Amino acid sequence: MSDHICSAGCNHFSHLNDPDLQAEFAEARHSLRSNIGGTKVSGKAGTGGVTQRPLPSKKEGENVKHYYIPANKDTVHWGYFSKSMDPLVKLDSGDYATIEAVTHHSFDDYERMIQGDAGVESIFHWDKDSKAIDRRGAGPMDHPAGAGGGMGVHVCTGPVYVNGAEPGDVLEVRIIDTMQRPSSNPDYRGKSFGVNVAANWGLQYNNLITEPKQREVITVYEVDATSQQTFAKAVYNYRWTPQTDPSGRVHPTIDYPGIPVNRSLITPNYDVLKGYEIPVRPHFGMVTVAPAEADIVSSNPPSYTGGNFDNWRTGKGATCFFPVSVAGAMFSIGDPHASQGDAELCGTAIECSLTGLFQFILHKKADLPGTKLYGLDYPLLETASELIVHGFSSPNYLQEFAGAEDPTALIKGSLDTAMTDAFNKTRRFFMDTRNLSEDEAISLISISVDFGVTQVVDGNWGVHAIIRKDIFPK
Amino acid sequence: MSDHICSAGCNHFSHLNDPDLQAEFAEARHSLRSNIGGTKVSGKAGTGGVTQRPLPSKKEGENVKHYYIPANKDTVHWGYFSKSMDPLVKLDSGDYATIEAVTHHSFDDYERMIQGDAGVESIFHWDKDSKAIDRRGAGPMDHPAGAGGGMGVHVCTGPVYVNGAEPGDVLEVRIIDTMQRPSSNPDYRGKSFGVNVAANWGLQYNNLITEPKQREVITVYEVDATSQQTFAKAVYNYRWTPQTDPSGRVHPTIDYPGIPVNRSLITPNYDVLKGYEIPVRPHFGMVTVAPAEADIVSSNPPSYTGGNFDNWRTGKGATCFFPVSVAGAMFSIGDPHASQGDAELCGTAIECSLTGLFQFILHKKADLPGTKLYGLDYPLLETASELIVHGFSSPNYLQEFAGAEDPTALIKGSLDTAMTDAFNKTRRFFMDTRNLSEDEAISLISISVDFGVTQVVDGNWGVHAIIRKDIFPK
Repeated sequence: MSDHICSAGCNHFSHLNDPDLQAEFAEARHSLRSNIGGTKVSGKAGTGGVTQRPLPSKKEGENVKHYYIPANKDTVHWGYFSKSMDPLVKLDSGDYATIEAVTHHSFDDYERMIQGDAGVESIFHWDKDSKAIDRRGAGPMDHPAGAGGGMGVHVCTGPVYVNGAEPGDVLEVRIIDTMQRPSSNPDYRGKSFGVNVAANWGLQYNNLITEPKQREVITVYEVDATSQQTFAKAVYNYRWTPQTDPSGRVHPTIDYPGIPVNRSLITPNYDVLKGYEIPVRPHFGMVTVAPAEADIVSSNPPSYTGGNFDNWRTGKGATCFFPVSVAGAMFSIGDPHASQGDAELCGTAIECSLTGLFQFILHKKADLPGTKLYGLDYPLLETASELIVHGFSSPNYLQEFAGAEDPTALIKGSLDTAMTDAFNKTRRFFMDTRNLSEDEAISLISISVDFGVTQVVDGNWGVHAIIRKDIFPK
Repeated sequence: MSDHICSAGCNHFSHLNDPDLQAEFAEARHSLRSNIGGTKVSGKAGTGGVTQRPLPSKKEGENVKHYYIPANKDTVHWGYFSKSMDPLVKLDSGDYATIEAVTHHSFDDYERMIQGDAGVESIFHWDKDSKAIDRRGAGPMDHPAGAGGGMGVHVCTGPVYVNGAEPGDVLEVRIIDTMQRPSSNPDYRGKSFGVNVAANWGLQYNNLITEPKQREVITVYEVDATSQQTFAKAVYNYRWTPQTDPSGRVHPTIDYPGIPVNRSLITPNYDVLKGYEIPVRPHFGMVTVAPAEADIVSSNPPSYTGGNFDNWRTGKGATCFFPVSVAGAMFSIGDPHASQGDAELCGTAIECSLTGLFQFILHKKADLPGTKLYGLDYPLLETASELIVHGFSSPNYLQEFAGAEDPTALIKGSLDTAMTDAFNKTRRFFMDTRNLSEDEAISLISISVDFGVTQVVDGNWGVHAIIRKDIFPK
């Protein structure tokens, strides 16, 4: 392990080229790659096969721990966050966890994305006699679409409890590495797959120009599981047709997650995007801590605690900072993506299971003044060269619509309001953490900060502001 | 000259590494740099000192011409475009022009940005007896703010007439090089200056958090004129105070371009952004052909013919493609910038005079089918690695609000409508020029195209879509 421990004010300049840290990251990757390949349930397993494992290190005597959290029916929560859940593991600031994330779209191609993978099979198991994970979403258990109503769709792995984290603190989560989850079907050895779904919640759905209108289309992509190949290729696509789930409910559209797709009812079209190569940007669409405002919260709209903010920059080498809202922070991940464009226009990315190696650093409230984390009330992302501020149409919809039966239904997604929020937060960032006047902050923003469309499909729309770190005084 | 002539379908892959072309560009740059340094009016001058000059070339016998268009009172039009103007020069497809662009904000610091520069002085000349350029904007000549009403603010150099260009054709304009315009004041030798103005049309104006509310602030930036230094630094800022123009009108806000700022009425503050270094991105905020829809049109809102679309990627090495709307295309440039961020949030960039070397290639309508230019009805930008589609709140406001006295007043700037327009155009691009199905186009957009906020301050707001060229089949 490197001796360097990032402080709240750390700009990561000093240690990105630290050979010790690079060696540590290399070892972490090796560990990640040797661990991956389906769910491991051996070792001294806790809930769902969570184990503590050594993180290879040149230095002995370190007190830093590394946990492995596989994804299976006992380690995931589907479509919601909750401060009241039992954590899978309690760890200390500085500890690592390798966490598997599984895409909720796996059943769009059972053969490629579920078959033979014990962990994924355990999550999606659903026949007329039993449904491994009944609640999918934060809605009522008697919802007509199914338990939980699909009001929140993501398979979330977690939560991880960070010892000592309290409301007002900031949790730093470093994404040290990511790996595509390989197909466990021997027919597809060495390959990994994901699906892009042009869904009813996409921007295009009411604005199609060819028939049949209001169709939903699934495109299956192949991604190289060895990470040797840096692009994805389309394999085939098909149109969603009404599907009857094992409980007997008919789903004319994709209105509930994890519906088993009956292959005899769909028509694969293999003449799709021939020759196109989509550069992969593996990342987690959803990284989050739990909010204090409610006991159970939909995973769909992003909010001040993070969640489904769907920024493709949330990948290897990036660091997320979250305002801690509840004891232990209660960190979860989900919505893994092989690639998306800014906007995630049709409602999804290449939805593709992914495993990540994370390190957790807790910053106590008292240490925040004078650092870039002071006043943080949104998920802040940092890369080697950028700080990325996230604005939303409703910055904290749980507070804004407190008391409503379904607060998510009251959010009015708009880029105009998200843009204003991104500006407000960026101005505060410069004024509060860099001691600039409002005039200085506004000029700097106008001439150097790039605003982009994060997503227009998660209910609470997003605009992000990219601050280049090379503008800051050396 | 290189033998290579780009076709409409050219992706520039083949010749970006062409040593002949690189040599040609190097020579062009040398020519540009030796030409720059204030207005040249020597030689066989046409209107305003426009001259034909040799473009250094290793090959003899070429028929390609190079024109030099200085900026002065006789070569600029202020705040409007018009298909009815007399062109400064008529040139052929393949010809080059070096064109000086002057910022309309020069009078915000007379000493640094006007004094001693004959061309710029001639443009801004205004005393109680005479005003060199009376019309500033497309508004009425008896407008209370001044002639033209400032309804359109940019000092535009042009127009250039391209022989043979007709409605339905596409004009390709390659930006081969750019150079900052050096200060002509001996006190500032070797330096170049620009101003950022947090103006009443900026997104922040009605959303300030410190007093006095609704202030306008000018920040003066220094940019290295030799292009050896890649960043800008703030010099000082001041708040706008009511200014009386030489014709006796009082301007409590910046409501008219080129108002001489009385230095005794402002208070410079030199304690501004100490140590901050803003990377320069020299570009032209405004590049355009003239629209057919009206005789005189404000330069403020961008439209399908280009104009003030304010994308900082419109710099050295980029190529613009415009749908030709009138005979000769009638090309102009203006609104030169040293740097802006996506959004241009406070209303302006670092507004800084700039000279560019351009090459013009005409693509005839009959040659467009089967190429990336087919169906083009917006300004398309191309860089070495990207194709950039521009969406606007109103894609063609002149057509949408035809007949209105002031069509610009009817545009409702919104990122939501601009986003939809950018999506519509990008989908059409893939379907019409790449022969993809709508389903293929939508999936490709969602997983690989990045949507960004171009600007929120030009009345007609912009969202751009960045298509990576490396996705295309090789």
